[in-house]
Amino acid sequence: MADYRVPREDMQFVLQDVFKVHEDWAKIEAFADVDIDTAVAIIDEGAKLAEGLIAPNARAADEEGVSFDNGVVTTPQGYKENFKQLAEGGWVGVTANPDFGGMGLPKSVSAQYEEMLCAADISFSLYSGLTAGAIMTIDQHGSDELKATYLENMISGNWAGSMCLTEPHAGTDLGIIRTKAIPNEDGSFAISGTKIFITGGEHDLTDNIIHLVLAKLPDAPAGSKGISLFLVPKFLVNADGSIGERNGVHCGSTEHKMGIHASATCVMNFDGAKGWLVGEPHKGLPAMFTMMNYERLGVGIQGLGAAARSYQNALEYAQDRIQGRGAKATQQPEKEADPIIVHGDVRRMLLTMKAFVEGGRAFSTYVGQQLDLAKYAADAETRQRAEALVQLLTPVAKAFLTDTGFEATVLGQQVFGGHGFIREWGQEQLVRDCRIAQIYEGTNGIQALDLLGRKVAGSRGELLKPLLADIQALLAEPLAGFEAEYQQLADATQLVHEVTVQVLSKVVDDENIINSVAVEYLNLIGYVAFGYVWLRMAAAAAPQVAEKPHLASKLKTAKFYMARILPRIESLATTIKDGSQSLYLHDLGDF
Amino acid sequence: MADYRVPREDMQFVLQDVFKVHEDWAKIEAFADVDIDTAVAIIDEGAKLAEGLIAPNARAADEEGVSFDNGVVTTPQGYKENFKQLAEGGWVGVTANPDFGGMGLPKSVSAQYEEMLCAADISFSLYSGLTAGAIMTIDQHGSDELKATYLENMISGNWAGSMCLTEPHAGTDLGIIRTKAIPNEDGSFAISGTKIFITGGEHDLTDNIIHLVLAKLPDAPAGSKGISLFLVPKFLVNADGSIGERNGVHCGSTEHKMGIHASATCVMNFDGAKGWLVGEPHKGLPAMFTMMNYERLGVGIQGLGAAARSYQNALEYAQDRIQGRGAKATQQPEKEADPIIVHGDVRRMLLTMKAFVEGGRAFSTYVGQQLDLAKYAADAETRQRAEALVQLLTPVAKAFLTDTGFEATVLGQQVFGGHGFIREWGQEQLVRDCRIAQIYEGTNGIQALDLLGRKVAGSRGELLKPLLADIQALLAEPLAGFEAEYQQLADATQLVHEVTVQVLSKVVDDENIINSVAVEYLNLIGYVAFGYVWLRMAAAAAPQVAEKPHLASKLKTAKFYMARILPRIESLATTIKDGSQSLYLHDLGDF
Repeated sequence: MADYRVPREDMQFVLQDVFKVHEDWAKIEAFADVDIDTAVAIIDEGAKLAEGLIAPNARAADEEGVSFDNGVVTTPQGYKENFKQLAEGGWVGVTANPDFGGMGLPKSVSAQYEEMLCAADISFSLYSGLTAGAIMTIDQHGSDELKATYLENMISGNWAGSMCLTEPHAGTDLGIIRTKAIPNEDGSFAISGTKIFITGGEHDLTDNIIHLVLAKLPDAPAGSKGISLFLVPKFLVNADGSIGERNGVHCGSTEHKMGIHASATCVMNFDGAKGWLVGEPHKGLPAMFTMMNYERLGVGIQGLGAAARSYQNALEYAQDRIQGRGAKATQQPEKEADPIIVHGDVRRMLLTMKAFVEGGRAFSTYVGQQLDLAKYAADAETRQRAEALVQLLTPVAKAFLTDTGFEATVLGQQVFGGHGFIREWGQEQLVRDCRIAQIYEGTNGIQALDLLGRKVAGSRGELLKPLLADIQALLAEPLAGFEAEYQQLADATQLVHEVTVQVLSKVVDDENIINSVAVEYLNLIGYVAFGYVWLRMAAAAAPQVAEKPHLASKLKTAKFYMARILPRIESLATTIKDGSQSLYLHDLGDF
Repeated sequence: MADYRVPREDMQFVLQDVFKVHEDWAKIEAFADVDIDTAVAIIDEGAKLAEGLIAPNARAADEEGVSFDNGVVTTPQGYKENFKQLAEGGWVGVTANPDFGGMGLPKSVSAQYEEMLCAADISFSLYSGLTAGAIMTIDQHGSDELKATYLENMISGNWAGSMCLTEPHAGTDLGIIRTKAIPNEDGSFAISGTKIFITGGEHDLTDNIIHLVLAKLPDAPAGSKGISLFLVPKFLVNADGSIGERNGVHCGSTEHKMGIHASATCVMNFDGAKGWLVGEPHKGLPAMFTMMNYERLGVGIQGLGAAARSYQNALEYAQDRIQGRGAKATQQPEKEADPIIVHGDVRRMLLTMKAFVEGGRAFSTYVGQQLDLAKYAADAETRQRAEALVQLLTPVAKAFLTDTGFEATVLGQQVFGGHGFIREWGQEQLVRDCRIAQIYEGTNGIQALDLLGRKVAGSRGELLKPLLADIQALLAEPLAGFEAEYQQLADATQLVHEVTVQVLSKVVDDENIINSVAVEYLNLIGYVAFGYVWLRMAAAAAPQVAEKPHLASKLKTAKFYMARILPRIESLATTIKDGSQSLYLHDLGDF
């Protein structure tokens, strides 16, 4: 696989020129010490780790995978050393609370770091990623004692974290979990049950693993309102903070998977394991989802990272590989063929990837910016507006970044022809590793249901307004040379409005409508949102092109996106208008 | 993985009721002994093999893969025994020349057999599939002596075949191959060079392997007009037909791939290996492509087979797995949740798969029918019309069946949620195995270029006419209850016409236009062709629904296809109209 190079310039362009995040930071107390130079320095430091240590190990780690022997999970060669480097650099706590040693950086910056980590090796990224999620959950919902006992060692990367939700019979439907929590006399709980698909449930990277576990108390109401959240350490922690005796939680096996071979996906057995309640009884699901909503952007970025890596590789290959002649004119008469990048269809594939990667980077930065404003902005109005955007865009970020990421990695494999299917080239690994991001942390179908059902229909369309207002604000200042594209985005926005009104008008009479068109609706919003960030990038690039000629590429890719990708919304809108009808003609016996 | 069940009824429905292939057979001398009962018997016999022997071994074979040791390739456990069964049943020569022991069956029937073999195990199917291709090439282009020496043992499955085209620097662009053929004094040739990606280049299933090799004679003109075809056996054959000494061709290594792990993908080194010319000097490429065009439908059917298997598994899972409640009403109040097939989005995924699988089965049968008519019809006019349809539809069959097949297997994985990513369930293997069919035997991008460039533009649109005429013939007899869908197909046909005229009008001024819109154009044709076969199926099913209630499903899926899938052509048409412009804004430095 080719060397990975972090797209430093584009990351800075997106942060500084497109979304001007530093202007937000200047108004936020928590970010008093952060400016664009800090962000650039963070990107540079992260790049050393991603380019120098993690990416070069990813291919071998995929081949080796994790191994399981009698409850012990061993990660591939190099993982332990690299995790130590990552931890010592403070990267586990890149957005974590500084009171416990976290860097407390903005999510918009963290998003860049997460992209490079995922581009380098998704499997490796998950160990620190899940730990960061557990840290946030404990920080937001745990008691002071739990925070004091666990956070510092987790943020330093001495201890890792895991999130234990799924059970064999309960994935999407967490309301029917069976794991039990029985109160002990000392205020702790005895946790018993089996969890599956637990990423990083067991491994050899850290001295302890802190599990966050959904379970039901004896008096729990039925369904999703009877779920509580517990902290269950692999090793109990002594009063002096040192590691004590082994707790009753063990890994029963690891899964053999299509991809992310180097990530330990564990069956975890809890046999009266000692645990402590996190947050209120029966309010475990909302506590878990506070974190999951914040982290879902991170899952989306897995798709983006894989796509970014695949694009770099495919571009290099398309420039080097010679095959056939350009249709218009021979490019390299001295060689026996031209580089394949001269061919229209190869350009179509590369530009589709480029549009998804750079569009995805801008979109994830936009969502990261809103997450920062929602959490830190001084005035309530800004926080509320940002929170509305976060609500709307979180499922889009998770699903659309992974769907477009998957499409991009498949294209990146196709550019390589037969070599794309061969493992040593690395392109097929990116397809396999990226694929899971469309499935876990709430399938992309569930994200779509969340977007159209809970968010759009649940607010009677109100939650759409800040996004549409942001688009209107852009459209209010036309960009010379992009008149047609601005009109196209205006039309697309109008289409979103029409389609939304249509769907909402059917909700009362047709209970099936939401889940019958939700995926197409999410894609519609995704393509329009990417159209918005592409034109924002064009608007940010245009005034600088004279001094920074490389930014001309932004204008060209924006034109490509509007001409070749955005038109996908036409078919989506037609399909959505069909409603649920054609999905419910079939009786069960008709399938 | 669930047991595989061959869709016998649907195969018969397609052959007998939709395309009435037996009416063709009655007029073809070579098929004097073939009727629908024969076809049904063949399907039943093939099903025993596919369901009973091959499918149950596929999962283990993927895990074991082929092994390579010092030139020797060992196939997974069970492959040798199963290949022997397949050979003894006469299945290697299902369409082969009866003069040498072939069954000589119609391709429309063979297509059903190929589907079940691919559904059972694509890797396994390739050993006999490539042999069948080599048989056909020798039969059509070889001398009487070559035929007498090789065909009987190949058709019986005693010996296998391989096709050696690709070289490290020459894949799509075969004009630049370097393998040399130097004439020997005895009329044979000494072949030297390296071939890569050779499916079944070496294995332990048969006593001999007959390679068909593209190479250049000393006096060869440059480029693709200087390529000759040679037969190079692994073991030379003695005058009495017995196996003689080892020839100078050896396997240097096997590739480690994303999928089809049990198919040996070989680097083949030819060191002065003894070979014999097949056909005319310098006319190797057309000879090879006679066969490849016939076999490309077979590659398309790999996508169909994988999709069919994935659909069966996904349907079973969606009926068994309970999770959440139906939006309209609880379906199973006695259980803690409803089966996921009640959810609109799960239905969307299943019906999309069903529409692609049954539509693909009908489409491949339609193409198979045309291949039979082109080869065997008594009157020249019928042969020529069928040949035109074959020319047009072959690249569509290869690319569209594998693209929709891949989409279907990805959906079939998604239906399983997290379990879809776990190897033991088998859904992810179908994704990995299917993926290569979009790449090899001419990438799908190359198929699109063939369709729009060579076929449509090359004939100034003439080759489209028989397809459009077939569609018009269907539309001339409206089906009650499908008035809107018939109008929709008429509009779609009109759209094809408009788009084609537009593209052709640009060809003179824009050399890049063809390869810039070819993939979208192929998809446009594919969706319209599937619309055609879906309405043909509806028309065939409607009069029989009273006596065969299960055919009601055809009418419902046809409605689904028209409502939810065919609208994809709107976006494709818009994109095609953009032409090459947005693909050629970028200079090389802009990527």
